[in-house]
Amino acid sequence: MAKRNAVYAQSGGVTSVINASAYGLIHATRSSGAMDAVYAGLDGINGVLEENLIDLGQEAPEAIEALRYTPAGAFGSCRKKLQDVRKNEAEFQRILDVLGAHDVHYFFYNGGNDSMDTVAKLSGFAKSQGYPLQVIGIPKTIDNDLPITDNCPGFGSVAKYNAISMMEASLDTASMSKDSTKVFVMETMGRHAGWIAAATGLASRTPDEGPHIILLPEVPFDANKFCNAVTAAVKKSGHCAVTVSEGLQDQKGNFLSEMGTQDAFGHAQLGGVGSYIQELVKRELKLKVHGAVLDYCQRSARHIASQVDAEQAMACGAKAVKLAEEGLTGVLPVIQRDSQSPYRWSLGHADAGKIANQEKMLPKEFIREDGYHITDGFRAYCAPLIQGEDYPPYHGGLPRYAHLKRALLPKKLPPFAKAKAQ
Amino acid sequence: MAKRNAVYAQSGGVTSVINASAYGLIHATRSSGAMDAVYAGLDGINGVLEENLIDLGQEAPEAIEALRYTPAGAFGSCRKKLQDVRKNEAEFQRILDVLGAHDVHYFFYNGGNDSMDTVAKLSGFAKSQGYPLQVIGIPKTIDNDLPITDNCPGFGSVAKYNAISMMEASLDTASMSKDSTKVFVMETMGRHAGWIAAATGLASRTPDEGPHIILLPEVPFDANKFCNAVTAAVKKSGHCAVTVSEGLQDQKGNFLSEMGTQDAFGHAQLGGVGSYIQELVKRELKLKVHGAVLDYCQRSARHIASQVDAEQAMACGAKAVKLAEEGLTGVLPVIQRDSQSPYRWSLGHADAGKIANQEKMLPKEFIREDGYHITDGFRAYCAPLIQGEDYPPYHGGLPRYAHLKRALLPKKLPPFAKAKAQ
Repeated sequence: MAKRNAVYAQSGGVTSVINASAYGLIHATRSSGAMDAVYAGLDGINGVLEENLIDLGQEAPEAIEALRYTPAGAFGSCRKKLQDVRKNEAEFQRILDVLGAHDVHYFFYNGGNDSMDTVAKLSGFAKSQGYPLQVIGIPKTIDNDLPITDNCPGFGSVAKYNAISMMEASLDTASMSKDSTKVFVMETMGRHAGWIAAATGLASRTPDEGPHIILLPEVPFDANKFCNAVTAAVKKSGHCAVTVSEGLQDQKGNFLSEMGTQDAFGHAQLGGVGSYIQELVKRELKLKVHGAVLDYCQRSARHIASQVDAEQAMACGAKAVKLAEEGLTGVLPVIQRDSQSPYRWSLGHADAGKIANQEKMLPKEFIREDGYHITDGFRAYCAPLIQGEDYPPYHGGLPRYAHLKRALLPKKLPPFAKAKAQ
Repeated sequence: MAKRNAVYAQSGGVTSVINASAYGLIHATRSSGAMDAVYAGLDGINGVLEENLIDLGQEAPEAIEALRYTPAGAFGSCRKKLQDVRKNEAEFQRILDVLGAHDVHYFFYNGGNDSMDTVAKLSGFAKSQGYPLQVIGIPKTIDNDLPITDNCPGFGSVAKYNAISMMEASLDTASMSKDSTKVFVMETMGRHAGWIAAATGLASRTPDEGPHIILLPEVPFDANKFCNAVTAAVKKSGHCAVTVSEGLQDQKGNFLSEMGTQDAFGHAQLGGVGSYIQELVKRELKLKVHGAVLDYCQRSARHIASQVDAEQAMACGAKAVKLAEEGLTGVLPVIQRDSQSPYRWSLGHADAGKIANQEKMLPKEFIREDGYHITDGFRAYCAPLIQGEDYPPYHGGLPRYAHLKRALLPKKLPPFAKAKAQ
């Protein structure tokens, strides 16, 4: 069988190891009997729609090697979500046209819940049109909220970084607590599920060590109860370190930080709950408070990536190639926990349609009874995922991250907008 | 000459390497012919006033070793500043009483501008009272704003962490910029001087790499000019990463984030300028914006400390012991740049009184003409200070930071308040 080309594209919020998946995939295609050239979509699915395909063959070998250590989306990501096929057949057809023009019969989509929806839809559409295309997902999300897979590439590193950040800032606050700052509030990402916020709990190895309180999206916020807990922690430990998830909600399910705007997927765009908690502490408890909002720094902190996470991300990229070689479509690799202690994992696969548009919340058995901390069960689950420090190489005191040329293939089709208008 | 005891105390905002200075000092006293026991003040000068002296002899050797890698103030810091001797002789006398009660004749104070004021005053007061006491400062401040010394221990590490954070978050923003976030705003510390904000400029090794704009306290803020610069960066690079110092001021010298509160030294307590800039971009330019406030995480980020910084911090601790052995008082070690390329440094010393209460601003030749970035001169100054990665040891995926017993010496004096009332 003649070798056919492949396209790889990144989607959704990026992570510190999504490029490690790209690296694993590119390496696996090199020894593949099925795949010839690999192209990358510039800015995710946008690159396919606009026929902006990056010719990876033009990249220097050291740039490809550097992907292993480079955070964020080296080829550009996107927030675009394809509509239902019935409503939007033109876009699906355009994708097949572009792929067909470049003899592409493998499409790898590296993303989260929404992206797996695209994998399932595109796979089905190609079949319905009789275009031979294998569409394979590669899991990626710092939120760790995909069902079926034991954990998601990207989560282990954000968990490690946030736990370390909390440990360090908590030591700082403890130092200052005698006659200055008593309370420190750190806001983490996590739109609906509390996995990231919960991970900071690994930093408190004794009850005196922060975080003393973790505010999870899964636990409706009660301001009075929270203020009492802060007072108790300050009394006992001299200071109080608080983790608050951006997705914290009140008793009625309203986000405490609703900004009234929405992203392209229709999700509310969050921010500012950390400030809300700080103000509350200042006003109600009259305690000096400081706060951090790590925002993008947390999901791009490749400088302190988890080794387990980086290895799983690379392995998922390679496994996606294998699944394609096995003739599958509409599937993605999933991580299986084979043994808890010692931690051992392997890769299986699942239907993208079963993962799409679903969110795995933090289960009840991972949340301490009072709602303000994690259980030993969560520690056992999460601790293996932050093991090992996969340091990037440095040059001149700064990480040596990939610089790509991102040279585009010559276009073979008229622009999409024009095609649409015909 | 009989050996006499020493007290070491930490003061002011802590850093990721202040304990490395403590480590250097403790090691140096072990081979000192002049010093016997070293005690640490619990919570800085408060520990001396309240006779809360930590007996370092009771700490496990591995805990002392771990200080080398542990961020924040392991013995507690303080914001207390001693008043003028004339106004406050009782406190100064109390300090001498406590030191005298424990045969302490060496006092080491590890802090910034305000702490060097205490060093100078206490040194003078002891002399005036005929109490043999050598008071030696040890420089420490992330703000890098002490005069005379070429740079301050603590700065190199915060510079490195913030430059890496900006580099990583800027890559993240670039990934998302096609159809989502266009502007990223990172707020850094630095009350009056822009050294920390400027250091993030090291991350932009090409004009397309963030930070595209650095807002310094030394450059009065002009909202129109800023908005035009953001628009230009987005047009050219597709996105715009902005560093803003917490000390940013308007044309009249008002802090943009004044919260109307003051700390114990009478300094305005800042915060929130990052939100101000984000709102401005959203409102005036209608661009999607994200923002991070690193707060304490930046000054406690020992996980990615600069090796040069850690080495200088340790060396300053050891040098302080040497200065005491030489019979000096009211002085502190200062760092001298002996050679720019290759970078070579050595330690000298200066009078604490000449450093006290002064702030070294970012000089004009380090600020690009348009006020929005750094010059090659600043790069040449700052780059050597972030060299090398002095990683801490890890256990279970998290840094193994010092756990101290902090056992107090038995008290020999009545409480200060009681003594005062007599």
